[in-house]
Amino acid sequence: MKVVIVGGVAAGATAAARIRRLDENAEIVVFERSGYISYANCGLPYYIGGVIEDPEDLTLQTPESFYSRFRIKMKIHHEVTAIDPGSKKVSVKNLETGEAFEESYDKLILSPGARAAQPEIPGVGLERVFTMRTVEDTFRIKEYISQYRPKSAVLAGGGFIGLELAENLRELGMKVTIVQRPRQLMSPFDSDMASFIHNEVRRHGVELKLGYTVEGFEERDSGVDVLLKDSKPLHADMVILAIGVVPDTHLAKAAGLELGIKGSIVVNERMETSVSDIYAAGDAVQVKHYVTGTDALISLAGPANKQGRIIADNICGGDSCYLGSQGSSVIKVFDLTAAVTGINETNAKKAGLDTDTVILSPMNHAGYYPGGKVMTIKLVFEKETYRLLGAQIVGYEGVDKRIDVLAVSIHAGLKATQLKDLELAYAPPYSSAKDPVNMAGFMVDNISKGRLKQWHLEEAALLPRDGSAVLLDTRTAEEFARGHIDGFQNIPVDELRERLGEIERDKPVYVICQSGLRSYIAVRILEGNGYEAYNFSGGFRFYDAVMNDRCLIETAAACGMDG
Amino acid sequence: MKVVIVGGVAAGATAAARIRRLDENAEIVVFERSGYISYANCGLPYYIGGVIEDPEDLTLQTPESFYSRFRIKMKIHHEVTAIDPGSKKVSVKNLETGEAFEESYDKLILSPGARAAQPEIPGVGLERVFTMRTVEDTFRIKEYISQYRPKSAVLAGGGFIGLELAENLRELGMKVTIVQRPRQLMSPFDSDMASFIHNEVRRHGVELKLGYTVEGFEERDSGVDVLLKDSKPLHADMVILAIGVVPDTHLAKAAGLELGIKGSIVVNERMETSVSDIYAAGDAVQVKHYVTGTDALISLAGPANKQGRIIADNICGGDSCYLGSQGSSVIKVFDLTAAVTGINETNAKKAGLDTDTVILSPMNHAGYYPGGKVMTIKLVFEKETYRLLGAQIVGYEGVDKRIDVLAVSIHAGLKATQLKDLELAYAPPYSSAKDPVNMAGFMVDNISKGRLKQWHLEEAALLPRDGSAVLLDTRTAEEFARGHIDGFQNIPVDELRERLGEIERDKPVYVICQSGLRSYIAVRILEGNGYEAYNFSGGFRFYDAVMNDRCLIETAAACGMDG
Repeated sequence: MKVVIVGGVAAGATAAARIRRLDENAEIVVFERSGYISYANCGLPYYIGGVIEDPEDLTLQTPESFYSRFRIKMKIHHEVTAIDPGSKKVSVKNLETGEAFEESYDKLILSPGARAAQPEIPGVGLERVFTMRTVEDTFRIKEYISQYRPKSAVLAGGGFIGLELAENLRELGMKVTIVQRPRQLMSPFDSDMASFIHNEVRRHGVELKLGYTVEGFEERDSGVDVLLKDSKPLHADMVILAIGVVPDTHLAKAAGLELGIKGSIVVNERMETSVSDIYAAGDAVQVKHYVTGTDALISLAGPANKQGRIIADNICGGDSCYLGSQGSSVIKVFDLTAAVTGINETNAKKAGLDTDTVILSPMNHAGYYPGGKVMTIKLVFEKETYRLLGAQIVGYEGVDKRIDVLAVSIHAGLKATQLKDLELAYAPPYSSAKDPVNMAGFMVDNISKGRLKQWHLEEAALLPRDGSAVLLDTRTAEEFARGHIDGFQNIPVDELRERLGEIERDKPVYVICQSGLRSYIAVRILEGNGYEAYNFSGGFRFYDAVMNDRCLIETAAACGMDG
Repeated sequence: MKVVIVGGVAAGATAAARIRRLDENAEIVVFERSGYISYANCGLPYYIGGVIEDPEDLTLQTPESFYSRFRIKMKIHHEVTAIDPGSKKVSVKNLETGEAFEESYDKLILSPGARAAQPEIPGVGLERVFTMRTVEDTFRIKEYISQYRPKSAVLAGGGFIGLELAENLRELGMKVTIVQRPRQLMSPFDSDMASFIHNEVRRHGVELKLGYTVEGFEERDSGVDVLLKDSKPLHADMVILAIGVVPDTHLAKAAGLELGIKGSIVVNERMETSVSDIYAAGDAVQVKHYVTGTDALISLAGPANKQGRIIADNICGGDSCYLGSQGSSVIKVFDLTAAVTGINETNAKKAGLDTDTVILSPMNHAGYYPGGKVMTIKLVFEKETYRLLGAQIVGYEGVDKRIDVLAVSIHAGLKATQLKDLELAYAPPYSSAKDPVNMAGFMVDNISKGRLKQWHLEEAALLPRDGSAVLLDTRTAEEFARGHIDGFQNIPVDELRERLGEIERDKPVYVICQSGLRSYIAVRILEGNGYEAYNFSGGFRFYDAVMNDRCLIETAAACGMDG
């Protein structure tokens, strides 16, 4: 059996090594256009910032090491230029010698990845305007910075790569501005949760220009002007484009393979394309979303590696299936950790799901053990069924743990109400006897039993302030004085029973406190005394963080318009 | 409705607060024998070491704070001396005034906890021989240390409390010896995994006397002699007994409630005892083991809190069930984190289960990102069904995360083969694209498909060394020279294909490398060339750590016998 693989990074390298482990006699040839195989894609931004010092750490495997261990021919600087499924051959060009040749295959694996999206605007080709995707891109940026010591950078795009770059360029002491059209960074998060990311990024001196459309680049004054629609240009010593990636599937298209979203390759559960004996995996393929069951494009290293392994199994006589991607991901944003799994509220609503959420702010470990820090959890579940749809967490230590616990819960089909039953490992340095995930489960359990009715952030401005409802803040007088929502009256929870007379009967009561806990107790006291009461999920802490961020975005936008 | 609760710490305090939240009108009285309610049981050792500085951090709730928020009467220094289920009354003694009185109840909750086990040996009552369970015990030890500045301590017992105490006493600069009859610390772990704990404890200067029976204590030379069976006595300035706990159920027994293991209270899924209107929760009750379905005694704070909540639900008209305990726990042992969930191999075999294991040593995050450290994972699963039975992990950062991922997997009934499908959140600072838990799943998947046959630690000494089998070490010559198992020959994996001629045909090949990865590749090469080959799960790294520990235990035991 002869297997040809197009692309030797995550899925391609994994498939190649596993095919060898399953079949000592297969002939395996990998064509990789770049000069590197099996490289640490996700580590590239950290090399630019100097966190990863040795470039060899990024490229642990070489064609030589791969051959000596696996007897796999890794042909770097070789570009596959065409596929002929009829004769089962690919056309290959040696990019170093210019030589062109054909290679036959019994099985073909396409793992070409995705390429950096390049906007079709003037100035994209300027010397100081970089894109960031490959090892070569990274070395180019690193070298430019070493040589010219730029003092400022504009990053176009604030997704994973953009944010990791922002952090690493700040590490180098550079002034950094992130500009993009969407009004929030990190689209896997809902806009309320993204506010915590915005606040952290600003706290570390990164300027955010959200809601701005980049129209082009112009070389000026030994730097670049970034031209914005309806606003004055930004100026920086260099620009890096990180506006996302698109599946690199021109080969598949030319060969007549069925394509899906954004030209991605359509595959079945066995990772087979529409053409027999051709498989595909990684950032180039369309997957089923594990939660919604709909077609999706999810570029993540974990799924790519799993898909490569599955293809190897199937090529070697097995029958392995890819179950779909659920979008579990995590990012370090300066001191913050932000993580997500499943779908967010925005996408759930777009998918037509009837959703509810709980938002909570637990400590990562026992409050009495030193070093505990608050995280913010947003859980998205389906009304009626309580099916767990997704979770987002921002915070510090322990965020990655809780997102993984929730990722497994989603994978296993647990309901949000069942999170209360999880028995997680507890000792004071690691967690609380009631783990944050349990706490989320308790809240959903209370909702499911009619013991907790909630109001949410987007309702805050809409609450009746005409006297037809009671707006109640149950924090202490000191906390209330430091900041509160207009129209709210203050009765601390511990005085509530004595002061019930101050709360008008027969009117709904909307309650808030700092984190949501005292207001929940107040809601229970009120309901126990015949009131209809609603708890604000997330507390004033959450409200304040989101509102401050939105205000800054509005102000920045207004300034831009003036300029 | 009037609810009386015996014991106001974890389960009792949780039940009390939730009953109030569900029923504003219930009368709730809690009798607590000690002077503290709802205290941070698991934090007590850290107060002794000064990690937690303020004693008020241990006792966040007071009877006053509880009353002002929940209108619950927390009667501290009140001991319930008898229960009369017929008349539905308890007899109570005020320990401060000596006053005795009766209190009626509609519903009674027993959450008396467990008490420190005290061996019936001479000298247990000596002034310098302490037990460690309550806040009062803790203050007593702390005060003694502050006043007399003891330079050395013997800890009898090396479970959770014993190890946490050892660490905290070392923090204070004291010489610490742990002595106990079992030959391993931390019985939830298999003895091989416990070796990593032993090695860490020794590395921090704690002397281990394992396999010794303490026969008594004698005051001598302004200290205590700890008398040992068949060995010379130990001497220290103070002794702390931490040999475990027993359910504190004399009340329940006298009232005729059905009792189970070690006198624990038998309850059903609703946490009802054998007597109507009496519920019980926490360390005093017998639970179903979630994995085996058998009766078990599992003293953990998480389950206690969940049980208290369930009782509150059921008392207030709900129908909540406790699904059993799976023994998820974690402990910080100096720099090490050791965690466990489900059952270990020893207990699985005792329960008559046909088990297999995989052992692996992955990094906690991407190797190319700085600060990565190796953890050791042992996964226990059922042969044939691949049901996940338990997991043990020792290591550093990220251990608590992986044990929780596995705890959820067990809770959700996932098979060990399904761990390969989990989509966990990855970025270089947090994990690898193939998470350690995925890696464990890949190994089990390979076993289930006949692609991986293993040999285990206990077989090492039994491997045929008469030429009827080939014993093969596939590390580099340098690694092999630094240490290897007697009788093994060395062929580095990357030379194996060329040197197959050196390996006799028609004989089974037992392969080892450093971590288990290169030997797995070697096994696949051998099988691909017609050999029957077996991989050593865990690698020489694991073998060496366990064997060194066992050797030290044997040597120490031999010395003791001589003395």
